[in-house]
Amino acid sequence: MKKVVTFGEIMLRLSTERHLRFSQANSFLATYGGSEFNVAVSLSNFKINTEFVTSIPNNELGMRTLEEIRKKNVGSHFIQKQGKRLGVYYLETGAASRGSSVLYDREDSSFTTLKTGTIDWDTIFKNASWFHWSGISPGASEAVANVCLEAVKAAKKRGVKVSCDLNYRSKLWSYGKEPAEIMPELLRYNDLVLGDIDTACLMTGIDKINPDYSNTKALPQVYNYFLKHFPNIEFMATTLRYSVNASHQKIGGIFYDKNKAYIASQREVIPVVDRVGSGDAFMGGLIYGLIAKPYNFQYAIDFAAAACCLKHSISGDYNLVSVSEVENLILGNEAALVAR
Amino acid sequence: MKKVVTFGEIMLRLSTERHLRFSQANSFLATYGGSEFNVAVSLSNFKINTEFVTSIPNNELGMRTLEEIRKKNVGSHFIQKQGKRLGVYYLETGAASRGSSVLYDREDSSFTTLKTGTIDWDTIFKNASWFHWSGISPGASEAVANVCLEAVKAAKKRGVKVSCDLNYRSKLWSYGKEPAEIMPELLRYNDLVLGDIDTACLMTGIDKINPDYSNTKALPQVYNYFLKHFPNIEFMATTLRYSVNASHQKIGGIFYDKNKAYIASQREVIPVVDRVGSGDAFMGGLIYGLIAKPYNFQYAIDFAAAACCLKHSISGDYNLVSVSEVENLILGNEAALVAR
Amino acid sequence: MKKVVTFGEIMLRLSTERHLRFSQANSFLATYGGSEFNVAVSLSNFKINTEFVTSIPNNELGMRTLEEIRKKNVGSHFIQKQGKRLGVYYLETGAASRGSSVLYDREDSSFTTLKTGTIDWDTIFKNASWFHWSGISPGASEAVANVCLEAVKAAKKRGVKVSCDLNYRSKLWSYGKEPAEIMPELLRYNDLVLGDIDTACLMTGIDKINPDYSNTKALPQVYNYFLKHFPNIEFMATTLRYSVNASHQKIGGIFYDKNKAYIASQREVIPVVDRVGSGDAFMGGLIYGLIAKPYNFQYAIDFAAAACCLKHSISGDYNLVSVSEVENLILGNEAALVAR
Amino acid sequence: MKKVVTFGEIMLRLSTERHLRFSQANSFLATYGGSEFNVAVSLSNFKINTEFVTSIPNNELGMRTLEEIRKKNVGSHFIQKQGKRLGVYYLETGAASRGSSVLYDREDSSFTTLKTGTIDWDTIFKNASWFHWSGISPGASEAVANVCLEAVKAAKKRGVKVSCDLNYRSKLWSYGKEPAEIMPELLRYNDLVLGDIDTACLMTGIDKINPDYSNTKALPQVYNYFLKHFPNIEFMATTLRYSVNASHQKIGGIFYDKNKAYIASQREVIPVVDRVGSGDAFMGGLIYGLIAKPYNFQYAIDFAAAACCLKHSISGDYNLVSVSEVENLILGNEAALVAR
Amino acid sequence: MKKVVTFGEIMLRLSTERHLRFSQANSFLATYGGSEFNVAVSLSNFKINTEFVTSIPNNELGMRTLEEIRKKNVGSHFIQKQGKRLGVYYLETGAASRGSSVLYDREDSSFTTLKTGTIDWDTIFKNASWFHWSGISPGASEAVANVCLEAVKAAKKRGVKVSCDLNYRSKLWSYGKEPAEIMPELLRYNDLVLGDIDTACLMTGIDKINPDYSNTKALPQVYNYFLKHFPNIEFMATTLRYSVNASHQKIGGIFYDKNKAYIASQREVIPVVDRVGSGDAFMGGLIYGLIAKPYNFQYAIDFAAAACCLKHSISGDYNLVSVSEVENLILGNEAALVAR
Amino acid sequence: MKKVVTFGEIMLRLSTERHLRFSQANSFLATYGGSEFNVAVSLSNFKINTEFVTSIPNNELGMRTLEEIRKKNVGSHFIQKQGKRLGVYYLETGAASRGSSVLYDREDSSFTTLKTGTIDWDTIFKNASWFHWSGISPGASEAVANVCLEAVKAAKKRGVKVSCDLNYRSKLWSYGKEPAEIMPELLRYNDLVLGDIDTACLMTGIDKINPDYSNTKALPQVYNYFLKHFPNIEFMATTLRYSVNASHQKIGGIFYDKNKAYIASQREVIPVVDRVGSGDAFMGGLIYGLIAKPYNFQYAIDFAAAACCLKHSISGDYNLVSVSEVENLILGNEAALVAR
Repeated sequence: MKKVVTFGEIMLRLSTERHLRFSQANSFLATYGGSEFNVAVSLSNFKINTEFVTSIPNNELGMRTLEEIRKKNVGSHFIQKQGKRLGVYYLETGAASRGSSVLYDREDSSFTTLKTGTIDWDTIFKNASWFHWSGISPGASEAVANVCLEAVKAAKKRGVKVSCDLNYRSKLWSYGKEPAEIMPELLRYNDLVLGDIDTACLMTGIDKINPDYSNTKALPQVYNYFLKHFPNIEFMATTLRYSVNASHQKIGGIFYDKNKAYIASQREVIPVVDRVGSGDAFMGGLIYGLIAKPYNFQYAIDFAAAACCLKHSISGDYNLVSVSEVENLILGNEAALVAR
Repeated sequence: MKKVVTFGEIMLRLSTERHLRFSQANSFLATYGGSEFNVAVSLSNFKINTEFVTSIPNNELGMRTLEEIRKKNVGSHFIQKQGKRLGVYYLETGAASRGSSVLYDREDSSFTTLKTGTIDWDTIFKNASWFHWSGISPGASEAVANVCLEAVKAAKKRGVKVSCDLNYRSKLWSYGKEPAEIMPELLRYNDLVLGDIDTACLMTGIDKINPDYSNTKALPQVYNYFLKHFPNIEFMATTLRYSVNASHQKIGGIFYDKNKAYIASQREVIPVVDRVGSGDAFMGGLIYGLIAKPYNFQYAIDFAAAACCLKHSISGDYNLVSVSEVENLILGNEAALVAR
Repeated sequence: MKKVVTFGEIMLRLSTERHLRFSQANSFLATYGGSEFNVAVSLSNFKINTEFVTSIPNNELGMRTLEEIRKKNVGSHFIQKQGKRLGVYYLETGAASRGSSVLYDREDSSFTTLKTGTIDWDTIFKNASWFHWSGISPGASEAVANVCLEAVKAAKKRGVKVSCDLNYRSKLWSYGKEPAEIMPELLRYNDLVLGDIDTACLMTGIDKINPDYSNTKALPQVYNYFLKHFPNIEFMATTLRYSVNASHQKIGGIFYDKNKAYIASQREVIPVVDRVGSGDAFMGGLIYGLIAKPYNFQYAIDFAAAACCLKHSISGDYNLVSVSEVENLILGNEAALVAR
Repeated sequence: MKKVVTFGEIMLRLSTERHLRFSQANSFLATYGGSEFNVAVSLSNFKINTEFVTSIPNNELGMRTLEEIRKKNVGSHFIQKQGKRLGVYYLETGAASRGSSVLYDREDSSFTTLKTGTIDWDTIFKNASWFHWSGISPGASEAVANVCLEAVKAAKKRGVKVSCDLNYRSKLWSYGKEPAEIMPELLRYNDLVLGDIDTACLMTGIDKINPDYSNTKALPQVYNYFLKHFPNIEFMATTLRYSVNASHQKIGGIFYDKNKAYIASQREVIPVVDRVGSGDAFMGGLIYGLIAKPYNFQYAIDFAAAACCLKHSISGDYNLVSVSEVENLILGNEAALVAR
Repeated sequence: MKKVVTFGEIMLRLSTERHLRFSQANSFLATYGGSEFNVAVSLSNFKINTEFVTSIPNNELGMRTLEEIRKKNVGSHFIQKQGKRLGVYYLETGAASRGSSVLYDREDSSFTTLKTGTIDWDTIFKNASWFHWSGISPGASEAVANVCLEAVKAAKKRGVKVSCDLNYRSKLWSYGKEPAEIMPELLRYNDLVLGDIDTACLMTGIDKINPDYSNTKALPQVYNYFLKHFPNIEFMATTLRYSVNASHQKIGGIFYDKNKAYIASQREVIPVVDRVGSGDAFMGGLIYGLIAKPYNFQYAIDFAAAACCLKHSISGDYNLVSVSEVENLILGNEAALVAR
Repeated sequence: MKKVVTFGEIMLRLSTERHLRFSQANSFLATYGGSEFNVAVSLSNFKINTEFVTSIPNNELGMRTLEEIRKKNVGSHFIQKQGKRLGVYYLETGAASRGSSVLYDREDSSFTTLKTGTIDWDTIFKNASWFHWSGISPGASEAVANVCLEAVKAAKKRGVKVSCDLNYRSKLWSYGKEPAEIMPELLRYNDLVLGDIDTACLMTGIDKINPDYSNTKALPQVYNYFLKHFPNIEFMATTLRYSVNASHQKIGGIFYDKNKAYIASQREVIPVVDRVGSGDAFMGGLIYGLIAKPYNFQYAIDFAAAACCLKHSISGDYNLVSVSEVENLILGNEAALVAR
């Protein structure tokens, strides 16, 4: 089976326990994650071969990160060891009316100092069928934006499918370029884009519109408004999330193949154990669905939404569910019994 | 006051913390439980004298188990010390759409190697008014199935009331006999059986039916369909559970005295702290109700359902509530205030 | 900016972890709190200058308490160091149908042995604009009831606004006096009283009535029934709490200025992380609102209710939220996103 | 086998974790102990029947205490349930040059309010061969001093052997009587006294001497100096402890039968896990030795010293070792191997 | 670089925290280890390519084990997934005079049901230079003893060096064969044997002798006494361990090349954090030394003893140190400074 | 009383629990510390008024740091809030032969971007009698080196005593300047310098010598060798530390007044709970001694060494002992008893 390659930053995540606020914390749980790594772990759990490309510092925290990658059976053969520090983010987990809060400490991380010409993309893509990246990386530094361009071009050259999760982060993009100066060029090499239309417009400089995602019939028009600028993009997908509060979410999804909008209807999620990485769980589910049952787009979007839903019950950045667990949820078997 | 005797296996329970999946666990909480022990603890908390009969290995874990039994003021005078190991079960506690999962490691446990002729049932039942066992025990090994028969016969001979929770476990019954080969004979010595009609049919080899428990008027007919095969059984009871998801349950109950179906209407339980042992809490509540207010069947079923409901808020296998806490819930006083 | 002074007892709180019952606890989380200290911390977080007056023993637990007070940037210049012990309360945190439970061990605490003439109220109130106390203090001991009287008189003399949270505690008032013998005199020096009308009647010996708080039009009449006995009281406020169960609350509030009842409508709170101190969060929010935007009573009651709501997501006795977090919740932005 | 009865206070012990100071603690480990209960647990572990007499309050902490007593298989049939609160002590565990520190909060505890005439000593001593108490109890309150007298007299009347651990606590004896006013009368009913000669003199008002315990030959004279005042006392014993620092102790013992001093030579203990209760472990070992091998005084003192030594490796107040573990240490088998 | 292959069982280890006894444990730390896996991890940390051959059950605990193997960068390509359960061992960590205690629950584990003919040893050894096994495996079951024979023969056939740690475990060898019936045949295919002469005699049925390891000059004669029965064995090595108590060890080693005894002198280890697996750390160090600097036997034994010494400071079964950390200790740089 | 002012960086410290290596950590204990802050806390515990000058970022971690400073009753009125991040250091706590290890992540911290002209030194020193800084600060950035110069000059101008702990950190000084280019100028304004002569030479560019500190008679000559370059320095002091291993230290000290060397002889410290910050505890003790008993240099050095010794028993960066605890240790009262 050919591999799915993902590229992005992996960070140390320091999260407070028991919904404590930062000001109350006398300890932090230490886990590791990052949007594109999370996608790779999802796929690895679904028994897809994966390769994760990133950069880590050559110190104890870098080596601990490498152990985490290996542990989840994600390929680590092309990981760069350079730079000064591992990016860190602190997470305060909210509850009820109090939202979660993230404090980034990722500037000057090993990943942000990656340079073009150092990663052997051609070898990486030899046995690959899919390449996934996200809008976080080009927001990290101009150097990484250039590596992204290098990567998507190399992928396209090898005939590898390319997907992007737009993942706009307002706290990034601080190096002097706007997303709209960088993303359009990168998106020209993509086959699948995940993100709502608002974000897509924001990151590409197209005039913003506010679509009503519940009006299914109008959706093709909405997506086409954006896609006319990117004729290369074959598919778009959007997580349908309604946040009642930090502990109560509703999760569904839309997949658009330029012809029809496939809908996964919203499912209640309460309580939320950990919502960080739920978008990545959606993305991982979507890629899996498209690979496992090509052209069965309803399966793909159902799988993505159900995987995303399950992620909310799992601590840490990445999803830890099997294909059968996701499929059981699609069938409506909502944890009715204790398996014994 | 005469004692309630229960018989069954007690195991070490190793559960993950904070809803972690097995793959994330670096530690396990260690508690002790088992269906029939849980019933005994419920009763002990309700100030009923109890005696728990089981077998434990003569090693540190066996002795630790004995301490747990003593701590809960449950009689331990007839516990056998033999066999090689204590049964263990691992519990992954689910949340929202992800169900809890149990991994049994109970084969060849001390309990499964119990032999007939070793337990002095006659002495045990001298001061007893009630004997409770469950369908787990005869599913553990043929030897234990024989001990069950020995026990129910001895109980009947002494005029002790006998109750059974059918408790079908698909992962047991692996020693070459089907439940229908074993259970009918055992049930001939019972006065009260807990379990839904489906399970009752499955375990006795009677053709399965799918009753609609909400159709109260039709319930006598449904129970009679089963009870005509077991004229000795005086009472049947069923937990009315609707699982919205792993964190959200609705709990009620039915009690049938061959004449009338007494209903405890469903109560919302959200969030679920720990649902393992909630059926045992129901059973313990039912026995208590029948002993405390004989022939007030509405009280008994209300008490059982409310006790079961409260159990969902308590970590560990067994219920830890008092009579007044259960009665307050029946009265509708749902934790509205902090008692201070 | 002039200070808000609060006076009351601060205790060591020993709470069980993970919703454990007292009988299951092998450890306790140790935090510090008390109704009037909690109000001071709320205000300190809102950037109001505060001074907390209390008494602590001159031992390690007293010194630890002092560190907690300093840490929250609450003034501690007038704290008495005398008496034998720090008051303690044990907290069992409930869930779903099982309510939380408090076990007080506060008799003969340092605070209860405070004497009149030892606190220099005149100096304390020199730079103060507001004094807050609660009905807990006069219930602790007759000596403290006398100190309360000393305080409210001194405050009035200095033209300082005085507020009281009635906070009836049935487990106090054990020194031989009824609230109605003590509270009326104390309330004559108050401008603002927090508490429902039932409690207000109970603590002042006025015949009890059961108002329907949802009938807004009738509310002035209800409040006036009580206020005719206390013409000095300018404002009354009430938390509108509906407890579905221990994990599910609905929180709103009413503010009455003797002319109009200002309503903050109820907001769902589920799940409850910790409800102890939520009334103090309400009080802290109310005082803040009245100071920050004088005469904008709608703002004050909205702020109080939203602060109270957020407190339910925070472990420990006191609220830990900023003005902008409260205002965001008023605007309806209910933790929809992870801030990143 | 006849029972050993012990009488004294059992308290909740709240100890800091990881050698933290009180000022650093955000949680406390919660265990239960008290000198005379600790002796009973030691004996219960040595398979001696025991009965522990005390008083606990009728609240959740009292009931939790009762569970602890039952768990250790110590008899609890004569425990009084009365009074207001459970005594508490806070423990800061030292290390190296920093000693451990205890903060008592035991005033007005249930035990201190025990009254004469409420405990049925005659029934208690019917099946008893030994009664153990300590100098802590008469130091707690005058009422309890009277109960002690009642107890030792009843024991003597029944021909039960009586032992006392002098256990001088400077923070007790605060009710207006000096030990020398109370202890001599109590000691007239004793057969065995544990304590060094200094303490013995201090508690009985005899002029203090400073014996050199290493001068074995002179020891009979030293003990006789004291014993001439108490001709009833048959045996005296002393723990030989040399504290290098909080983590490093040397432990031996002396037993004197009015004829000869039997010595257990000092053994190194490093590191100390928990030294609280090590004297009680010595006492429990001594009573065991005297019961198991009457008149083999060398065995008794060796057993006492080795049990005391092992206690230093065990968290919590009471010792948790078996006869064979103690005997192995006497034989010199100092944990050389991992048993597997 | 050619691989080092190790073969043996990996178990779940459940250890008590904070030196607690089994009877005190309310939770267990969960790690994974086994003698031969521990050797592989040591080597992997020293940057040697490794492959670990074992059998795990196809359940959640088996998969968790696999993640642990991958995480430590140990090859897992030939691991069998079959059988019913993962072996478990419980560890009570001693301190001072109280030794650690192991409770095995490994009967009928997946590993014990391995069968000959299922592992493709020929492929495994194609790129291997070294094969390590231990006396634990043939003690587990007769089936595994046969697999061991299959393995050592295949290794010899491919010219792979074979080492064995005798690792006598009295709690194994329960299937009806004595070590002396099994081990001699297996040892005929070995180049290096680790173990003291006593154990070597015991496991091979040779008359036992009690050598004085401090008499260096006599050592060749001692080893030759044993080796004359096994002319194929080129090297023998022995850990020189003196256990002062559970927290205090002295660690050195001997290596004998049939010509000369190379000695690593004893080094103090105090306190011991975790001594389980320290023999495996010695073995891993020895293999590393022999591979890294062939024929520099002094280096090898120094490296083995220093690695073993460091292991005592590390929690869990396997060593976690780098080549430079071991070499620094050899040079005498004993953690004198905090590296910063 | 006039204040002692200290200036330096305070960092978040993330340390592994239970001696775990970084690669094993799934959580970190979060405390706060820094050399000069640690000195201030020591002094605050000794009841000296203190003011700590530093810079923290205006985010949640910065505010948490501020709470820590307030909690310890250290003045925080001149703390700058600017810059991007709080410096962090990770601590792996060693044991026995394995040393502790620090991983700095402090580049670009708020403190390193402090600028001259922003701190109002003149106001700060108005009520100050002492100023303490260390060689860490000028090693952090050239900007901070300039602030140091600004500070020592302002202190001298105000007649404030100035002390410096040389604190050489090889991982700092990475901005292009050597210590010898910076430190000599800074030291010209100092009265007291703490550090061994080697370090003093290294940091000032003077030819290194290796003094034998045990040769007391030769010490004046050794110190004079260095001091002839810095005639302004009145006093030098050195911690006499001998590291047996990470768990075993010997601690003493030397104080030189240009006339006589005052010696505190070495005291054993075993086991070490936490040695980070022990030098700061020495410094804090020394300043205290010089202030409390001016010109009693023996007292000062004894106090410094004993405080340092006690610090090894305390978790976290800063010392938490009282004057009486230090003085008791000087008197030789080494934790012989449990205070009760």
